[in-house]
Amino acid sequence: MLADLMKRNRSYRRFQESERIDMATLRELVNLARLSASGSNIQPLKYVLACEPEMNAKIFPCLAWAGYLKEWDGPAEGERPSAYIVILGDREISSSFGVDHGIAAQSILLGATEKGLGGCMIASISHDKLRKNLAIPDRYEILLAIAL
Amino acid sequence: MLADLMKRNRSYRRFQESERIDMATLRELVNLARLSASGSNIQPLKYVLACEPEMNAKIFPCLAWAGYLKEWDGPAEGERPSAYIVILGDREISSSFGVDHGIAAQSILLGATEKGLGGCMIASISHDKLRKNLAIPDRYEILLAIAL
Repeated sequence: MLADLMKRNRSYRRFQESERIDMATLRELVNLARLSASGSNIQPLKYVLACEPEMNAKIFPCLAWAGYLKEWDGPAEGERPSAYIVILGDREISSSFGVDHGIAAQSILLGATEKGLGGCMIASISHDKLRKNLAIPDRYEILLAIAL
Repeated sequence: MLADLMKRNRSYRRFQESERIDMATLRELVNLARLSASGSNIQPLKYVLACEPEMNAKIFPCLAWAGYLKEWDGPAEGERPSAYIVILGDREISSSFGVDHGIAAQSILLGATEKGLGGCMIASISHDKLRKNLAIPDRYEILLAIAL
């Protein structure tokens, strides 16, 4: 039942980093987002998928973890996410993205929960740093990161 | 399975208006939104619930239906929504609402789909008219309407 899924879908910030998540799983999750509503059905979202330690290491330091916990720098080595889905907005498709990325992120996290995974939406991102680390073209606005 | 729910969750714009939806059902749907993620866990969203014809009639003319269909004024009498959930942002709690209402709306619509209902998120709203018709105080920003 959906209500159970909603309850299980918490915002996790410590992960079992050694549990790898494969690219096929990430694609399945993005497929749920693809099936979700988009304002005026413009579908301007694009996704960066990461599940290899090397690429994960480029994303992790660009994210701010739990702003309320001033003493906590985020998850330690071994407890960091084993995968990420970064949601981008394609400026060649639209100049504004409304709440499309919120809708998509909720679909992705519910899908992850159903698969027994846990994750967290992170909007507090060092945009310039992430753009540089992943060589994201200016065409794409960085909207949201999902850590898994 | 969640993927089936996602596929069934289309954006419906013609409704079985005579099929009433009761207040308890709307509260259950809002409860799903309440369990969903909120940026910094600020939880600034409030909800107006409508399921009586008189109140529905105050909401319907404030919504724009399918901008692409220039020839279509929206659903005819008898095919109009039998309930609405209007999502508001409480400015006394936060000045910005991020994508909280997108996350909440997706939870609500997936919940509605699971119950065999169909609906549509509508962001194109005559804000002033809706504020007046429902006597919504200035404290609340009108963010999104969900028609069911």
